[in-house]
This record gives sequence, C-alpha cells and structure tokens, in this order.
Amino acid sequence: MTTLRHARSVPLADVTIDDEFWNSRLERNREVSLEYQYDHLETTGCLENFRRAATVLNGRADDRGGFQGIWFADSDAYKWLEAASYVLARRDEPELRRRVDEVIDLVAAAQDDDGYLNTYFVLEEPGKRWTNLNTMHELYCGGHLIEAAVAHHWATGERDLLEVAIRFADHIDSIFGDEIDGVPGHQGIELALVKLARATDEDRYVDLARYFVDLRGRDDRLARELERIDELAGYESDEEGIAAGARDIFYEDGAYDGSYAQAHAPVLEQTSVEGHSVRAMYFFAGIAEVAAETDDEELLAHLEHLWESMTERRTYVTGGIGSSAYGERFTEDYDLPNDTAYAETCAAIGSVFWNQRLFELTGNARYADLIEWTLYNAVLVGMSQDGTEFFYDNRLESDGDHHREGWFECACCPPNVARLLASLGEYLYAVGSEEAQLYVNQYVGSSATVEVAGSAVDITQTAELPWGGDVSLEIDVAVPTEFGISLRVPSWCTDAAVRVNGEERALDIEPEPGTGRWTADYVTLEREWDDDRIEVSFEQSVVPIRAHPAVEANAGRIALTRGPLVYCLEAVDNDRPLHQYLIGPESASTADTTYRDDLLRGTVVLEGEAMAPDFEDWDDDLYLPATETNRVAAPFIAIPHFLWDNRAPGEMAVWLRED
Amino acid sequence: MTTLRHARSVPLADVTIDDEFWNSRLERNREVSLEYQYDHLETTGCLENFRRAATVLNGRADDRGGFQGIWFADSDAYKWLEAASYVLARRDEPELRRRVDEVIDLVAAAQDDDGYLNTYFVLEEPGKRWTNLNTMHELYCGGHLIEAAVAHHWATGERDLLEVAIRFADHIDSIFGDEIDGVPGHQGIELALVKLARATDEDRYVDLARYFVDLRGRDDRLARELERIDELAGYESDEEGIAAGARDIFYEDGAYDGSYAQAHAPVLEQTSVEGHSVRAMYFFAGIAEVAAETDDEELLAHLEHLWESMTERRTYVTGGIGSSAYGERFTEDYDLPNDTAYAETCAAIGSVFWNQRLFELTGNARYADLIEWTLYNAVLVGMSQDGTEFFYDNRLESDGDHHREGWFECACCPPNVARLLASLGEYLYAVGSEEAQLYVNQYVGSSATVEVAGSAVDITQTAELPWGGDVSLEIDVAVPTEFGISLRVPSWCTDAAVRVNGEERALDIEPEPGTGRWTADYVTLEREWDDDRIEVSFEQSVVPIRAHPAVEANAGRIALTRGPLVYCLEAVDNDRPLHQYLIGPESASTADTTYRDDLLRGTVVLEGEAMAPDFEDWDDDLYLPATETNRVAAPFIAIPHFLWDNRAPGEMAVWLRED
Repeated sequence: MTTLRHARSVPLADVTIDDEFWNSRLERNREVSLEYQYDHLETTGCLENFRRAATVLNGRADDRGGFQGIWFADSDAYKWLEAASYVLARRDEPELRRRVDEVIDLVAAAQDDDGYLNTYFVLEEPGKRWTNLNTMHELYCGGHLIEAAVAHHWATGERDLLEVAIRFADHIDSIFGDEIDGVPGHQGIELALVKLARATDEDRYVDLARYFVDLRGRDDRLARELERIDELAGYESDEEGIAAGARDIFYEDGAYDGSYAQAHAPVLEQTSVEGHSVRAMYFFAGIAEVAAETDDEELLAHLEHLWESMTERRTYVTGGIGSSAYGERFTEDYDLPNDTAYAETCAAIGSVFWNQRLFELTGNARYADLIEWTLYNAVLVGMSQDGTEFFYDNRLESDGDHHREGWFECACCPPNVARLLASLGEYLYAVGSEEAQLYVNQYVGSSATVEVAGSAVDITQTAELPWGGDVSLEIDVAVPTEFGISLRVPSWCTDAAVRVNGEERALDIEPEPGTGRWTADYVTLEREWDDDRIEVSFEQSVVPIRAHPAVEANAGRIALTRGPLVYCLEAVDNDRPLHQYLIGPESASTADTTYRDDLLRGTVVLEGEAMAPDFEDWDDDLYLPATETNRVAAPFIAIPHFLWDNRAPGEMAVWLRED
Repeated sequence: MTTLRHARSVPLADVTIDDEFWNSRLERNREVSLEYQYDHLETTGCLENFRRAATVLNGRADDRGGFQGIWFADSDAYKWLEAASYVLARRDEPELRRRVDEVIDLVAAAQDDDGYLNTYFVLEEPGKRWTNLNTMHELYCGGHLIEAAVAHHWATGERDLLEVAIRFADHIDSIFGDEIDGVPGHQGIELALVKLARATDEDRYVDLARYFVDLRGRDDRLARELERIDELAGYESDEEGIAAGARDIFYEDGAYDGSYAQAHAPVLEQTSVEGHSVRAMYFFAGIAEVAAETDDEELLAHLEHLWESMTERRTYVTGGIGSSAYGERFTEDYDLPNDTAYAETCAAIGSVFWNQRLFELTGNARYADLIEWTLYNAVLVGMSQDGTEFFYDNRLESDGDHHREGWFECACCPPNVARLLASLGEYLYAVGSEEAQLYVNQYVGSSATVEVAGSAVDITQTAELPWGGDVSLEIDVAVPTEFGISLRVPSWCTDAAVRVNGEERALDIEPEPGTGRWTADYVTLEREWDDDRIEVSFEQSVVPIRAHPAVEANAGRIALTRGPLVYCLEAVDNDRPLHQYLIGPESASTADTTYRDDLLRGTVVLEGEAMAPDFEDWDDDLYLPATETNRVAAPFIAIPHFLWDNRAPGEMAVWLRED
C-alpha cells in the first residue's frame, strides 16, 4: 500500500445495499436493463462479431460476413460483462452466470494466438493493427476487456476472462514502447492496467499504464497518423467516413491540436480540462491510479488542480460535463449552454470514477460530495424509469424534442450506466490507509463488514435520501475499538445534527449553506466503538442557485435544488410554456415539498408560486410599454431533473427565469 | 383614379428634403454609395454580362466568356439605375446622368429582338428560357428593369429605358397566359407592371399583374417544375448547385409546399404571412396596387388582415421581418429569436413599399407609422455610416461576430437601400383622393408644392426627428382654401401638442403611450389655410418595451425605445458582457438622454443605471445559493440600434435582461 493513498474504498463484495430509493433501481438494472442490453448485443451483431472473428481465426472461413456495428462495439460487450460480474459479486444468479460464461467463451475464442483481440480488425483489416491509434480504439477496447476481466475475477474468483485479458495486456506490453511508441486516441487502458496490476500483483502493468500517461502529449504519433490517414485502418472500410472525419476534430484552425484527446501537452503542463470529456475522465481516473501506485505527489496535486479547473468553470449544475456535441467536449470556461448541453452520460460516469480515486488519494470530502451529486443528477437521468431507454447526451433545457432512446449506434452509455449501478456498493464506505478511520461517503441504506484498526466492524445504515436527510448507522464491533467515523456533511445540507447513542454531538464543522456546490467536509466522531448508534439529520431545504455571472446562458436565471437533487420544470406538470414562469428566490425557497407516491413511482415535488405575464394585457399587441403589462401569480410544479422525460413529451427547463 | 385609393403620395419630384438628420445621409447615399455600388457592378461582372450578351446577340461571338456572378445579377444593375434615377429626379448631376445613360445603353443592347432580356440566359442557357420559374428569376429581373425604367422616365422624361421595359413587358405578356401559364418564383413583377401601366396608361399591364396575382397558388406549375428540375435551366450550369438546392426549400416533409414563395394557396386563402419575406413584401405591395387599379375591396381587406398577422405575431421590435436564415423566411407566430434573427434589409425595404400602398389605399396612419419605425430601425441599420458596408441580415443580438460587409454574392440589399433612400421624398406627404386633405406622414425637414382642393399649397417643414419631437410646418396657399391637414401622431409619442399660428389646438385624439407599436392615428386640422404656421411637439420619452409573453427569446427582457428609435447596448460603450446588465423598467425610463455630437457623427445616447452581479461574491464558485449573491449598480450606455457596428466590433443586444 502506497503512502499516497489516503483511504481505500470498501469493496463491493463486502457491502449489501438495502435502500428504499435504490433497491428498485438496482433490481431493474439487474433484471431488466442487463437482459435488455444483452439482447441488443445480440441483435446489433456485437456478439456475432466475436463468433465470426473466431471462425476466421480458426482459418475455417471468412465468408460468414464481416463486422457489424460501430468499429469499437467490442467494448459494449465488455462493459456488459463488467456490469454482470458486479451483479454476480453480490448474488447467485445462475442464469446470468451461465450467460456471462457464454459471452466469455465467445470473447476468448476471438483472441488471436499472439494475444491480440479486436473483432473489427480480425474481420475487416487484419493487416492494419495499431496503425490508427487516434480513431480505431484498439487500446480503448482492450481497457474495457481488462476492466471486465478484473471485475469478473473479483466477483467469481474465476480466471478464464482474466487470462484472456492478461494475454492481451502482455501483447500490448510487447508492442508498445518496443515496436511502437504511441498512446491511445481514446484513453481507458491506463485505469484498466492498474486494476490488472492489482488483480495479478504484476507491477509491469503499472509501468505500462505509466508509460501511456507519461508519453501523452510528448510524442507526435497522433499528429503524424493524421497526416497519412488515408493509408490507415478505418479509412476505406468505414462507409460513413468516421475514421476520416475524425481527423477534422483533431485540427484547430487547420493545424493538428491534440486537445480533443488531451494530447496537446504533457499532463503536468495541461492547465485546464480540455477535449472529449469521456476521454478526459477515464484518463484522469487512470492517472490517479498511476499516481497512487507510483507515489507521485506532483501528479496528484496537478490532478486536483485540473479538478478545480473543471468544477469551478466547466461543469453543469447537475455535475454533467462537456458542453458541446461537436467533439463531445469541454469548450471554454463558463460556456455552459442549456438547450444544447451535451453532458454525456458516460462523461458523468467517468467523473464518478475519477472522483472516487481523488477521494481515495486525498481523503477530501469534496470528491465524495460530487460523486453523490453526479449520481443523482447526471447519471440516473441517463436511464428511463423502466430501464430500457437511455439518454446519451443530456440537455438542461429542452423544447420537447429531446428524448431517451432504446439504443444507439455508439452504445457506450447504456452498459456504462449498468456497470456503475451494479457497482454502487463500492462508493459507500472507505477505510483510512494510515489512520484508524471509517469514512461514510454515501448515504445509502446498506450493511457492510469492514476491518478498521484491526477490528471487524459491522455497519448497518438506513437513509432517507434523496427525499429526506435522516440517516442512522448501527455500529457493531466485535472487540471495542477506538477509531474515527467520518461522516460526509453534504454541501447541500442547510443544517446538520449528529447524535451518538441518543446524545447530541457538537459538530466540529458548520454546514455552510452559503458555500458553493461540492464543498463538503467530514465530521469525524472519535471514540471507542462497540455497539453504538449514530443518528444524523442533514437538513434539506429548497435552495435556489445562481450560476457564476460569466455563464451567459444562466444570466437572470435560478435553478432549484433540494438536498442532493437538482429540480426542473416539465411541461406535463405546468400549464404555461416554461419561459413564462418568473420565479423569485424567496418564493422558491418556500415552495411546498411533498412526497407523492402516485407520481413517477414516488418523488418529492416542489410546488410553488411563480409570476407570469398577464395575457389580459395583450390582445393583439406584439410589443407594449413595460408599464402597461402586468404579472399574475402562476403556480408551478418542479420535479427532480433525473426523472424528466418519463411521461408525456414536452418542454423541460432546469434554469428558470428569475423574477 | 379609382375609388379604392384613399390618398396619393406627393411624388418625389415635388419634394425637396432639407433635414439635419437626413441631409448627410442622402448626400452620402448619392455621392458615396451610388459610386461605390457602380464600381461593384463593374468589378463583379454585372455590367460586363450586359456587354457580353450584346455581343452574343449580335452574332459576333460567344467567346468573350460566360456569365459572371449570381444568375439574377441583372437586377442589381436595374436597382442601381432606379436609385440613380431618383437622384436625377431632384438634382442635375451631369456625371451621374452620363453614367446612367451608359448603363441604359448596355441594357438596351442586351435585349433580344423579341424583347427578351436576361443576360444569364443569353450567355448560359439560351434554349431554356422560362423553364424554371421557381428559381431562375427572369420575371423578378424583369420587374426590376421595369421599375428602373419607370423611375428613369419619371425622373428625366426620357423614354429610352422605358421602351426597353415596354418591349420586355410586351414579350412577357405574349408568353404568359398564352404559351405558358405560370407565376414567378420570386415576385416583384406585379408591382412593376402596375407602375408601367401608370407610366404608359396601358391597362393591359394591370391585367398581366392581375393574372400573376390571381394564378398564384392555383396552378401546379411550380410543383411540376421541381419534379423535373434536372431538365431545367440552372440545374447543370450552376456549379454551386443553387438551382438544384432550391428545390429543398420548396419541400416540407418530402412534399411540395409552395409557402416559401407564397404559392401554397390562392391569395385570398392565405391567412398568415408565410415564406421568403422579401417575396412576400414585394408581392403584397404588388397586390395592393392591383387591388387599387381593379377596385378590389376584398383583396384590400385581405391584405390588411395579412398585415395584422405579420405585425401582431411575426415582426421584430425593429420592424424587421423574417426570422430564419433558412429560406430567409417567416417561420411561426411569435418565433422571433434575437441572435439568429434574419430580418433581411431587403425585407424591411419591401415592408416600406407595402405599407406605403396600404396607407394610400386606406388612409390608415398605422401604415405610415410602421414605415417610419422600419426606416429608422430596420432599413438604416443596413448601411454603415460611411455608406460602403451593408448588413444583408440583421441580428437583434450579436456575440460580436456579425458585421456589415462590403458586398455580397447576392447583392440585393445595397442597391435596395440606395433606391429607398434616394426616393425618401415620396413618403412624406400625400393628398386625399376624394377629400380635401393633406397628409403629413413623415416628419422630415423639407419643402413641397402640392395641389389640394384645386389650390397650390407650399409646405415647408422643419423637424427635430429622430433626436427630438418638435416639428414646424409653414403653409402658404396662393388662394386661401379650406382643407384638412392630417398630422400623423406617432405611436411612440407619449404626449403631443399642436399649435396653429401660436394658438394651442385641442387634439381630437389622445396619444396613448399604453398602446402597442404602430397604432398611430391622424389629428386633422380643418380650416381655411392661407399663410399659416403649425407647430407640433411629439414628446419623446424613454419607453421600455416588453414583447408578447409567447415570444420565448424575450421572456424576462425589455427593449429600450425613445421616439422612433429602438436602442441597443454595444460592447464598446459598456464594461461588462452585456448579459450581466439587469435593467429595471423604472430605472430605464429615467435614463439620461444626451445628444452627443462626438459620438457616431452625432446621436442621442441613453445613460442609465442597471444592476449587475457582484463579482466579490464569487471567488472560485461556479454555483451559489441565490441568497449568498448580491448585485451592484452598473451604469450602462445605449445607442440607437441602427448605429451599431460602426465602431470596435463586439457584443450587441436590443433585448436586455430585466431586473
């Protein structure tokens, strides 16, 4: 264990979630979404690609047809395997296990003798492996393979998929830094390799990850590739011209600019989060692991700086990131348009991965706080209530034309949501690496057994979140032991109270409702723990939020939040076009908050009174002197943003005009 | 004279403008813009096209090169001729006259023996005349030829260009309704033919105009053409594919929809203004003339209905029209985006033409009122202060990227502005057709001699507009005569006073600052006029305006107006990004109004106090509770919208966030 790792999350296998809010969602993920997604892997040809590749590799025939779907579709199968593995880590599901084993067999059979594994290349361009790192995503797919393999190994103890991953990783290791110097156009492999290193206890995978991190922004291979893109893989075979078109996205003002893939400068010289937001998040999560494994404090400090550059200037109020559909990327500071917000679901998921590692490395509550906020507001929104429709990109304002879809040609998001939900247990608790300390990061009903200061500690948590702020924790230690329990005081709570065994404890921090988002802190309860009960109340008020004055899209607007949730107005609940509601901050803060179990399978709605133009004034006029027009009271209903687009289609807005 | 024409405008030749605001603008138009535009006609090949066409027609050669510029560029030359003729109507300018005569010679020489005249077809597709009425604009060019010819004849008494126009009109008359049934894709010929009828006293040109009006929306020729567009003129020769691409714009959801060219239904069945806004305006102006000449009250009533559908739901606060760059067209009711506003300069000019005829037919002041508003706010903005740069489309909000340009491939706007400015005198006065009444429609310093009730009346007007509201009129009648003088009380004035020979006269109408825009009325002074002086004061206050609640772009915003001017904020005058200014209506109405002769060659600016976010609150936060953020006073300066983009490039906004 390195000195740089402040805490280690309690692994999934040791946590059992039992939570009123989450149970049904995890069940739907397990029982509907995984099945639904498996069906799509089959119908879109993703699994068939593995079968065909195996046939070709066996030299039997290549007349069974070519590759189907998007060229990096292998990764969808891997993400599904990873999600399914997390389910298997917690539950015995024989049918799912059988299906997982089948898919693993398909994957294994599609691996070439030298360890290479990518069905697109086997089926379409066998001679052009590793020629187009920018676009063709062999390393990205390899990363997902490794992550799936590690998850499967941890979940089941089995090594079949792990061996496949090791062989591919070893093959990559034999190529990169040797035959080829280069980095992936789409990151992901860095994080995966560190996971593999831990699963196998092989440091050389850390070295390879470090190689990819260190080389990025220093070599000119990506630029050189683009100069002769017409000779490379993906150029001719791709009928939609994606591989060729991808070149444009790397060029700014006619010259190569690697920022789209965070390759514009060495990591330590990057001063802001740039480019494709999913790549950035996967990369930064990988860097965090590399920093941890190599005790690189400078790298860690720089990551924290990048986190600040993101959260202080380039993050939607939902926690979503990436403002522009073009390049699925970060743009400029304070450029956060609502109706064209991209805020890809995968980017939010990647942000969770990165924040989890930043928490582990630093013990800073702000990272766990942003995980909570992102989960509720930027990840959950990515899946419909029935678990079968998905948002790839997420608007914060819609004229009614933006809707979840059943699947995507680039189907990265659905299995990504599935794997995150299936691994939710990983995010709840952590144990200090050096200090005798138990962190409670997420308030989700659950039980866990963890070792703190040499003692086995049983924790049982109940939590009202997100609808309420009361949490209780039962602590049961086999042998009474002294350690600290650190409770995250969420940035959203407007007051907090903690009792231990019924006795009020003074907080060593003050909840500061006046502070910005995601600026949480821990309150640490130190004592000899035995058989104790902690009760916490985090006050949830309706807090209207303003955005930084430089955010043009939100000038003169407020967003409504309550507890960890961002709210929105949706047409189906409100009579008028949404732009007509003018909501005063005071009026917003006193909105009624009611839990309605008849609505959206149960939700707290905000019911308040806005002002709106009085149509009586208007007759046939298009313009009138302001003095001649009046406003009337107009009741409004707001729902949590993550629940929008689950009923009749229509307008939606997070940022509301302020009265 | 038909009974349907309520009044006749006093013609240009009888009006001499002498006005502090307009003199320099008209001089610049005459001495800079006309010369500048002539040079562009030469350098872009527009005039050379006529020379080449003449060579081809003389059978001498076709090796002098093909057609240059956009296929309907002939019309630019005609509009320039028309503008120059209006100048010659008022002033003896030998150099200009020589140049006009030269251009007329070029035009005449390019006319075919049968009267046909279109240099594109002569040079490029001689066999495909009249095959593509949708796109190829032979009739549109013909209309501009006729208008130029009539203007030149009226201005100079000469008939050379008029004879060319007559021959082409006769040729058109021999083709349409005979060899071909069809209507122009781009209207304009209708209005021109009625002008020609009046210039020649030939009713058959009215009949031909009526034919084009009546057939529109009843035949399926435009639709049928599009089905075989690849056989038609313009399809192959046009390397940019415009003729082919034009098809898309006529198709809505895969099927032909003539609304782009107001051909979706017979005129009387059109219930809203639709489609390409310049076509609509030219068409409606032509219909008004046809209605007048054919005593068609139903048609006139319907035009007034269409006017209401435009001004009540589809007009920018500047008077600009046409919301969408795609199709340069009207879109839907209340769809008036600011930062993508199209509001083509030519459409505003067309609106002036239409409104002038609606006034003449009805005597309703609202039409003259909209002319004034449109002139100041939607036409003048189209030309830079130095007369050599032009807006084709006009934003009401710009991030700093929208600027006037020196010329356009489709150069319709520059000579259109020129011909309107050169004919400004036509819009000032009118005389009742039946009643003994003199209308004063526009407050522009000027003198005119008009016949009212059989007497010659000399009028001398001085006016402070647009910077002030004081107007004086000296009336001098040879023989004392009883008649009414009707003064338009502008919709913008917040109070009005009229004195005759120093004696206050009660107004028979009340200025109603509470009414919408463009809802003016006349105050009529009846007496025996001899040698009298009328003094009028129209109060100009700063009036903040709200838009109809259904206009989403303007929700929570106000626009500042004073007198006939719409104001805007421009970056060069204001420290902060414009979205940060929050302006309260009360604070706006009390803004200081100062005439600054050091600024923009003299202008009244509004200097007021807005509120703006206090950056002290913000440190590194991106989102804060509304209660924790404050506002500070922020002075602002607003300038007339028509003057924007004459200094340092930067942001501009008409609609300001309301505090």
